[in-house]
Amino acid sequence: MNFSSKLLENAVAEFAKLPGVGQKTALRLVLHLLNQDKEEVQKFSSAITKLREEIRFCEVCHNISDQRVCEICSSHKRDHSLICVVEDTRDVMAIENTSQYNGVYHVLGGLISPMDGVGPSDLQVDSLIERLKNDEIKEVIFALSATMEGDTTIFYLHKKLKQFNISISTIARGIAFGGELEYVDEITLGRSIATRVPYENSLSR
Amino acid sequence: MNFSSKLLENAVAEFAKLPGVGQKTALRLVLHLLNQDKEEVQKFSSAITKLREEIRFCEVCHNISDQRVCEICSSHKRDHSLICVVEDTRDVMAIENTSQYNGVYHVLGGLISPMDGVGPSDLQVDSLIERLKNDEIKEVIFALSATMEGDTTIFYLHKKLKQFNISISTIARGIAFGGELEYVDEITLGRSIATRVPYENSLSR
Ligand SMILES: [Zn+2]
Ligand SMILES: [Zn+2]
Repeated sequence: MNFSSKLLENAVAEFAKLPGVGQKTALRLVLHLLNQDKEEVQKFSSAITKLREEIRFCEVCHNISDQRVCEICSSHKRDHSLICVVEDTRDVMAIENTSQYNGVYHVLGGLISPMDGVGPSDLQVDSLIERLKNDEIKEVIFALSATMEGDTTIFYLHKKLKQFNISISTIARGIAFGGELEYVDEITLGRSIATRVPYENSLSR
Repeated sequence: MNFSSKLLENAVAEFAKLPGVGQKTALRLVLHLLNQDKEEVQKFSSAITKLREEIRFCEVCHNISDQRVCEICSSHKRDHSLICVVEDTRDVMAIENTSQYNGVYHVLGGLISPMDGVGPSDLQVDSLIERLKNDEIKEVIFALSATMEGDTTIFYLHKKLKQFNISISTIARGIAFGGELEYVDEITLGRSIATRVPYENSLSR
């Protein structure tokens, strides 16, 4: 691209680093911002900087939170003996949207992916073990994407969790293999939590 | 969406204001930025603020430029008797990419659109008239999108420009009606400039 301005080129280059955003889309987004009032653009960029600077994660479940302990973990209305293990905050939001789940969460912060160099130590695995040791947990539900990475992560965690006297289940696979959890509709997701199966059963199918 | 953090919600809301960016995409982009180093996020947001704060437009053609007069307008290698009228900087970039055009430009900054409340006074029309009065212009080429707004703008400008002793042409319509200029491939766009037709002829077809 032939940019008439270095400032423009820089801004487009930054946008084009975002996932799924090509050069043309980046240019369109940047020109849109250029047409906004300075105050609007300031609001846009400070919302991002502020989030990145001040972001905190719940000390218990590691979900993004503005407090030390998130609203779900500090709620007395939730069933704290039931932990749903998810990849990231999007999955918590998706499950909360179904209104089918009343337990608490554990946000791993990723999935095991040897291809991408992500191992168990990059994820919130130790703190999950600690929760199982210290709290009275009855059941752990894996609500991970039906992908190779999701399955690898469940396989690894299941081995680690066997030592505890708890039920381990995975959400029912209404989801096609390769399906990313975040794109599943609310009804399917709600149903797959309601019809969750013990992990061993899920293997034999 | 059920956000676990106000900071996250704000950042997502800002991204979702961008054209073509829905809530889910906004969330994905924001979480991507959250995973980057603070310095990277700082670079991203300052590139945008800096552009908006320091942006300048060429005093002659109104294209985005870091100088008072842009490189094209100040080049002695360009044919300054030939003005190509375009909607915005993306169109200049698209035409420059074809390497088929050696004249200069005039960036209107939009198209006449009664539906969107954009009238001639919102566009760089007066300064175009001034250029025609003061400079030795032989031809004006309209390279506007083949849309209702593009046609309305050409119709309006053609009436204004008739008083001058210049050729007025439009780029050949290799473009389907409704086609946005910026999405046209280089070959089609280059050819349509080479085979441009006098405006009157374009009306009778
Ligand atoms: Zn929490
Ligand atoms: Zn210029």
